[in-house]
Amino acid sequence: MPVSSHVTGGTVTDRSSFAARHIGTDPADQDAMLKAVGYPSLEALMDACMPALIRSADGLGLPPAVSETEAQAELRALAGLNRPMRSMIGLGYYGTHTPAVIRRNVLENPSWYTAYTPYQAEISQGRLEALLNFQTMVADLTGLPVAGASLLDEATAAAEAMLLARRAAKRGAGDVFAVDARVLPQTLAVLATRAEPVGIDLRVADLSDGVPEGAFGVLLQYPGADGSVRDWGAVVEAAHAQGALVSVAADLLALTLLRAPGEFGADIAVGSTQRFGMPMGFGGPHAGYMAVRESLQRQLPGRLVGVSRDSGDRPALRLALQAREQHIRREKATSNICTAQVLPAVIASSFAVWHGPRGLRAIAEHAAGQAARLAASLTGAGVSVAGDAFFDTVTVPVAGRADEVVAAAAAAGVNVRRVDADTVAVACDETTTEADLEAVCAAFGVPLAAPAAAAVPAGLARESAYLTHPVFTAHHSETAMMRYLKRLADMDYGLDRGMIPLGSCTMKLNAAAEMEPISWPAFADVHPLAPADQTEGWRILIEQLEGWLADVCGYAAVSVQPNAGSQGELAGLLAIRAWQHDRGETGRDVCLIPASAHGTNAASAVLAGMRVVVVGCDEAGNVDLADLDAKIAAHADRLAALMVTYPSTHGVYESTIVEVCARVHDAGGQVYVDGANLNALLGWAKPGRFGADVSHLNLHKTFCIPHGGGGPGVGPVAVAAHLVPFLPSDPSEAAAGPVGPVSQARWGSAGILQIPWMYLRMMGSAGVTAATASAVLAANYVAARLRDHFPVLYTGEHGLVAHECILDLRELSRESGVTVEDVAKRLIDYGFHAPTMSFPVAGTLMVEPTESEDLAELDRFVDAMVAIREEIAEVASGAVAVEDSALRAAPHTAAVATADEWGRVYSRSRAAWPGGVSGQKYWPPVGRIDNAWGDRNLACTCPPVEAFGE
Amino acid sequence: MPVSSHVTGGTVTDRSSFAARHIGTDPADQDAMLKAVGYPSLEALMDACMPALIRSADGLGLPPAVSETEAQAELRALAGLNRPMRSMIGLGYYGTHTPAVIRRNVLENPSWYTAYTPYQAEISQGRLEALLNFQTMVADLTGLPVAGASLLDEATAAAEAMLLARRAAKRGAGDVFAVDARVLPQTLAVLATRAEPVGIDLRVADLSDGVPEGAFGVLLQYPGADGSVRDWGAVVEAAHAQGALVSVAADLLALTLLRAPGEFGADIAVGSTQRFGMPMGFGGPHAGYMAVRESLQRQLPGRLVGVSRDSGDRPALRLALQAREQHIRREKATSNICTAQVLPAVIASSFAVWHGPRGLRAIAEHAAGQAARLAASLTGAGVSVAGDAFFDTVTVPVAGRADEVVAAAAAAGVNVRRVDADTVAVACDETTTEADLEAVCAAFGVPLAAPAAAAVPAGLARESAYLTHPVFTAHHSETAMMRYLKRLADMDYGLDRGMIPLGSCTMKLNAAAEMEPISWPAFADVHPLAPADQTEGWRILIEQLEGWLADVCGYAAVSVQPNAGSQGELAGLLAIRAWQHDRGETGRDVCLIPASAHGTNAASAVLAGMRVVVVGCDEAGNVDLADLDAKIAAHADRLAALMVTYPSTHGVYESTIVEVCARVHDAGGQVYVDGANLNALLGWAKPGRFGADVSHLNLHKTFCIPHGGGGPGVGPVAVAAHLVPFLPSDPSEAAAGPVGPVSQARWGSAGILQIPWMYLRMMGSAGVTAATASAVLAANYVAARLRDHFPVLYTGEHGLVAHECILDLRELSRESGVTVEDVAKRLIDYGFHAPTMSFPVAGTLMVEPTESEDLAELDRFVDAMVAIREEIAEVASGAVAVEDSALRAAPHTAAVATADEWGRVYSRSRAAWPGGVSGQKYWPPVGRIDNAWGDRNLACTCPPVEAFGE
Repeated sequence: MPVSSHVTGGTVTDRSSFAARHIGTDPADQDAMLKAVGYPSLEALMDACMPALIRSADGLGLPPAVSETEAQAELRALAGLNRPMRSMIGLGYYGTHTPAVIRRNVLENPSWYTAYTPYQAEISQGRLEALLNFQTMVADLTGLPVAGASLLDEATAAAEAMLLARRAAKRGAGDVFAVDARVLPQTLAVLATRAEPVGIDLRVADLSDGVPEGAFGVLLQYPGADGSVRDWGAVVEAAHAQGALVSVAADLLALTLLRAPGEFGADIAVGSTQRFGMPMGFGGPHAGYMAVRESLQRQLPGRLVGVSRDSGDRPALRLALQAREQHIRREKATSNICTAQVLPAVIASSFAVWHGPRGLRAIAEHAAGQAARLAASLTGAGVSVAGDAFFDTVTVPVAGRADEVVAAAAAAGVNVRRVDADTVAVACDETTTEADLEAVCAAFGVPLAAPAAAAVPAGLARESAYLTHPVFTAHHSETAMMRYLKRLADMDYGLDRGMIPLGSCTMKLNAAAEMEPISWPAFADVHPLAPADQTEGWRILIEQLEGWLADVCGYAAVSVQPNAGSQGELAGLLAIRAWQHDRGETGRDVCLIPASAHGTNAASAVLAGMRVVVVGCDEAGNVDLADLDAKIAAHADRLAALMVTYPSTHGVYESTIVEVCARVHDAGGQVYVDGANLNALLGWAKPGRFGADVSHLNLHKTFCIPHGGGGPGVGPVAVAAHLVPFLPSDPSEAAAGPVGPVSQARWGSAGILQIPWMYLRMMGSAGVTAATASAVLAANYVAARLRDHFPVLYTGEHGLVAHECILDLRELSRESGVTVEDVAKRLIDYGFHAPTMSFPVAGTLMVEPTESEDLAELDRFVDAMVAIREEIAEVASGAVAVEDSALRAAPHTAAVATADEWGRVYSRSRAAWPGGVSGQKYWPPVGRIDNAWGDRNLACTCPPVEAFGE
Repeated sequence: MPVSSHVTGGTVTDRSSFAARHIGTDPADQDAMLKAVGYPSLEALMDACMPALIRSADGLGLPPAVSETEAQAELRALAGLNRPMRSMIGLGYYGTHTPAVIRRNVLENPSWYTAYTPYQAEISQGRLEALLNFQTMVADLTGLPVAGASLLDEATAAAEAMLLARRAAKRGAGDVFAVDARVLPQTLAVLATRAEPVGIDLRVADLSDGVPEGAFGVLLQYPGADGSVRDWGAVVEAAHAQGALVSVAADLLALTLLRAPGEFGADIAVGSTQRFGMPMGFGGPHAGYMAVRESLQRQLPGRLVGVSRDSGDRPALRLALQAREQHIRREKATSNICTAQVLPAVIASSFAVWHGPRGLRAIAEHAAGQAARLAASLTGAGVSVAGDAFFDTVTVPVAGRADEVVAAAAAAGVNVRRVDADTVAVACDETTTEADLEAVCAAFGVPLAAPAAAAVPAGLARESAYLTHPVFTAHHSETAMMRYLKRLADMDYGLDRGMIPLGSCTMKLNAAAEMEPISWPAFADVHPLAPADQTEGWRILIEQLEGWLADVCGYAAVSVQPNAGSQGELAGLLAIRAWQHDRGETGRDVCLIPASAHGTNAASAVLAGMRVVVVGCDEAGNVDLADLDAKIAAHADRLAALMVTYPSTHGVYESTIVEVCARVHDAGGQVYVDGANLNALLGWAKPGRFGADVSHLNLHKTFCIPHGGGGPGVGPVAVAAHLVPFLPSDPSEAAAGPVGPVSQARWGSAGILQIPWMYLRMMGSAGVTAATASAVLAANYVAARLRDHFPVLYTGEHGLVAHECILDLRELSRESGVTVEDVAKRLIDYGFHAPTMSFPVAGTLMVEPTESEDLAELDRFVDAMVAIREEIAEVASGAVAVEDSALRAAPHTAAVATADEWGRVYSRSRAAWPGGVSGQKYWPPVGRIDNAWGDRNLACTCPPVEAFGE
């Protein structure tokens, strides 16, 4: 059916359009909701709540909406413009066979990809277990006891290692971070971007010649970018002797055959898990990793899953040492990481569960054997290769013939790596076949020799065991694996079960039609360094998407490179800084940030070399203009930027935003508008038009990339014209621009950009505009219905909120002792994921229903909150002690609700079925988790099976 | 990794092969199991249990096994040989947009496709609800109150209607079944196949000229194959006046605009639901439907879902009037249907839930509008079209230019239908675009006219409402739809939760790599009548698969046309009959069938025009040779065939099979070996070599097509050389062979043949051989471990079983009153799907673990059965009355286990957690269902929502 979208005052009138499927409420629902809120139309509501000053006069310039079939057909045509070839380029990206059982049951399963970050641990045990498997896998393979739950990519993980080393270094250590010349070039490029703003002196050298003076840390690659495998023992000793910490960027697959970094003294290991089953995806997303020795565990950036216990004293998992993260330490920050790569990490750990230690070793031996055979073919024919100790990559000096060899191989369908005009490198992997080797040998003009064994130097051969936990051997049949993945998924609560009304996180629909194309081989199986003539489809897709994003936000250009919101913030601030430096304004280093801001803002500013100055908020939660003036005056010509979220983190359209921007500009500063709340603006207002110079967008919020259980995120940076030259550079081109790369791949997590492309292509301008108004209506409807039960903390004009609302429980908590945590956990019994807890204001819940929820679900949520309010009243009245209440005992597991002994002051049915009996209830697999106990007894690898015994 | 399969005595030694993933037990497990069974090796076990006489000397001729990546690459190459074009051929197959939310969450979701037929209704409520939606949809649209849960395709549904009409006809009615000439040609072809053996006189005529004398029934097509829409009212009256029943083959989509068959007097409606979201798939599978007036409801063939109540008096769904089905009435049979098309029916009903009445009507108006526009374009340019009342299909007389027009359209990328040399027909559908119309108009040499409205005759316009139940309007946002599908899936127990040890049904792994290719558009989007040069990939795939299947079974040829096992039986028996008739042996009409046979065998024989004579079994459960001799002697030259299952339905390799075959052959009969138990033979013995002339294979058992919750099945027929000319014909070629088609599409359910293709390609000869031995080992292991607790009813040589074992509960039931049903339902509490109940022997359970279960799961099952045995002992001892026991109260829902009042003689923990407490338990959504109550109070459409209120 031909489909077009029509919009009237924000309402979708074409009921067969994708927009009508994406938006949960239909016109009849919206009429009823508008009535409850007190406005005659969506247009009138938007007029009332959004300041006229920021309203965008020009509409959106998206192409007319098409149906899901048409959009997929267009995308298939783009896919057809790519020519995926056999890749033997290597450099951190390798061919891998994603096991179909994992692709289908994880990557393509909404139960995995629609889940949120596991902050509500009781309803996240499945992905927490998969992440614990990830940590165990990394810890085992690296030989270091504590591994985090993934980082963004190898290069940024190396940057985090650099920063960790500096903060862990002894007092008086120098400012030098010494990097061996064999480190991957994209890692070097990202380190350069990150070192300069924070005053680190980055030195690149052959560290086997010695460690530079004044080094607080060193970084080694193992195996090196040239494929070489060397014994770093002496370098590690030398570094330690100087007081420097040693980081090793290691290939996890190689570690199945090679001595582990922890075994030769490394303090930190970092790297990528891409080759554990994640397609190359033109650069990402892939899970980076970091592991550290025990004494550094509390310094680890990012998320760490730990084992604790629940209210029934049974083992239960949750994010450990949480204080380090979400509530990042603002101006004292040493990392701005708050996204992990959960879905890719789950895939990587599932790959290890599927293959087990023997299978992984066999894959490594295959790759290394193929490399050895290639080397033997070359040397046997008189072509010498560089070095004799390598894992999977053979570097070949070819004296001026590099282009010729690369072209010959490409003509045979294989991409190899041109190192320079005189050198070619060839990387083997899990997928390398004899035919591939034949093609490569032919390109070099040599015959293929007989199969050979892996060429791991005897002294470096791995002797220690790994992946000894039973989980890595119990699920090797596909039936068993399918059930294991299902069992884990069943433990978790995702959007496929019900609403996840998370303020600031915009948990909207991730439509199947948007998700399907990420599995298409013509997109997934492309190396990020494949020649441009093989990747035309990718390039067009990215160019279109960047253009659409720039249009809807009112900016001149967008870069999709930042692979998380935090990296987008950093890229945006670096652009401001570089622009100012370029103008000679090198003294500007103060970043003003309102008190209500997300901690990441401040952390990013610090990492961009700025000083954070906090601006106060007034009673209504808005930026205090007087304090803003005072802070501007106090810092005068040091003012670099103001960083502000709009609508504010209080969920309100501040009417003074235009004035705020103007004052900062007048003082010579730049304005950064955090795009976290863009879902309240699209189609109605453009940050680039109402005063901002730069924003980052969260594609995993507003643009439908799923949260994946806690990543991948994608955080493009969008800038006004004057900042365009200062967008992040291509990491593969040294010194390509004034600002270096912030991610290791040119287009970051390219492999999932099909999702926002499909979203915008199917929604069109009218659809996007309607979605925004529908989201605002939903938030105001919830606020209107709950206002009599819980105070709504901040509102804007006419008492309206924007796309989210804050329910203030502080007074109720004081009266009753019932905490926001009690309410959040009790919501689980009602079949809900809790709203955002205690952000941006402690003691509150921030609710963002998004446009995708329908009226029935909104009402179900409101009813649950009202019922909980009555339970709180019972406690407040003294009828029930809070310690004895169902609120405090929540969530109730099936085991608790069916226990032979009861002995509680409330009934079983009230415990288990507060929302009414139904045939299918979501039961949390564990009870309330004791976070403090787990932090005191930190355990971050898989516990022995016996721990789960009764 | 290059992968090859090696086998040593049935054990897979290449642990990285697909075979090692498909087979659940690894060598260490198998060693332990062999020890328990008492044999040193798989080879020794097979030697002991399988008679040497049947062992195949020649191995299998499958190509060497390849990995899942390699097999998919090969299949992608085949897909690349297809050239899917825009199809406007029509004739029962139309373009349709499968909504991505349904494709991902149903078609590609193991929770839906790995489930079994819903015989255990308590753990099948999700798909039963989806099927009830299907029935409601069909009943509403056809205007007839009772619809079944789907039939195999439109043509076989028409054949069932013919048979139903005959048995419902008044005494003294004639033998004529009158078919209007506008009926789809493939329907006519199947009717011809089916009418002759049962003595029905099929007459084809323009029934608007009058109904033939002696007609017990008539069949009309609405709209006709030529696209015409006519008022059949007068014909219906005339038919009724003669005492004939009227069947109408109706297009459900058209019925959203046209008066319903029930409204103009039809007694029966049949048709296809393909265009409700199921891809054409080169012919199938698609859900056929049948609806009847109330007085015929107990005559309805196939499965019928009905509403009953559970032990807690709440509404609960289950198969109604079950006595009509699984236990088909042998020689009195009037239908052999026992498979439905559950998965396609779920997709079709989900399509209706997704679009709702308004959306379906809009789709119909689009198709009809496009057809009207095409007709207007033609007539406007002076090209007349046939008739002026049509729905979506326009028939155009072109006087000798048909080939030219068809070729011109094809050159523009559109297939239209060549009716004959002088006539072209063009069918529009949901997907028809303006560009398609332009291409077609250009082929006719006319310009495209302006858009036009649908051309439904005013007198036939639909006035009644349909799809008024709230389910058809409550889930129109994708978020709501995703959750609805998830909620339904969560109610059900599939292979993704645990073992389904169903004797005779071979519930083995349906690997993701096997399933993925069925969604590839280059396979899915192909019309079965697309020109051969567009379907080369499909043809090669089918030719290879038929060749491999013939090889592994030792036959000369295979036809994949039969789209269920029952249709394969019929095709095989028709081949025997036709061969004998061809030799002049027209008197042979007796089919010998052992008493232990599945009821379908007898039903198929009756439908093939044979008389069933039952041969007794001896005490050991084997065919009684003496009785066989007696029956052969008694029927002498009337003997047509013996139909026997091997290994027998008792799960035993009968050692006399070769002798049995010889005696039948000596008497001039043919031998039909039912392939239901082929999983006990593959790689070790070939029915075509040890004495059989014909078999059908169940691709949904042995060859990994999933059961889909009760279909699609695929039942290819395999024959020895002399029977090859008597395989079913191509339904599109009139009188192409001596035996007509048994399905409406030449290759039946082609659209899922990628699954067995992938299975055989990845397993190779060694893998298949190992799988068989592993399945036999698993059954013998279970038998060995359970033998002390439950007698194993039949065994063969050395006390061994084949691939399944029968646990005899009769004595226990007598002692204790505990029934097999009690045990089956109690197994749900332990987290299992019950084995086959009371087949082939009442009061027993037949367990078939298959090769895909691992040892841990086998042991978990054995432990559950042992624990249940102890519970039975408690009852038998008198300690607990059976009425008070947990066995009788099983299964226990969460609502029951958490009820505020308990008052049972056993504890809650024993009720809910007999297998131990775990974080994730499967809870049945309803308690024990009262089947008899539901049959007495038959209700087969969606109940009002209030019925589910507390």
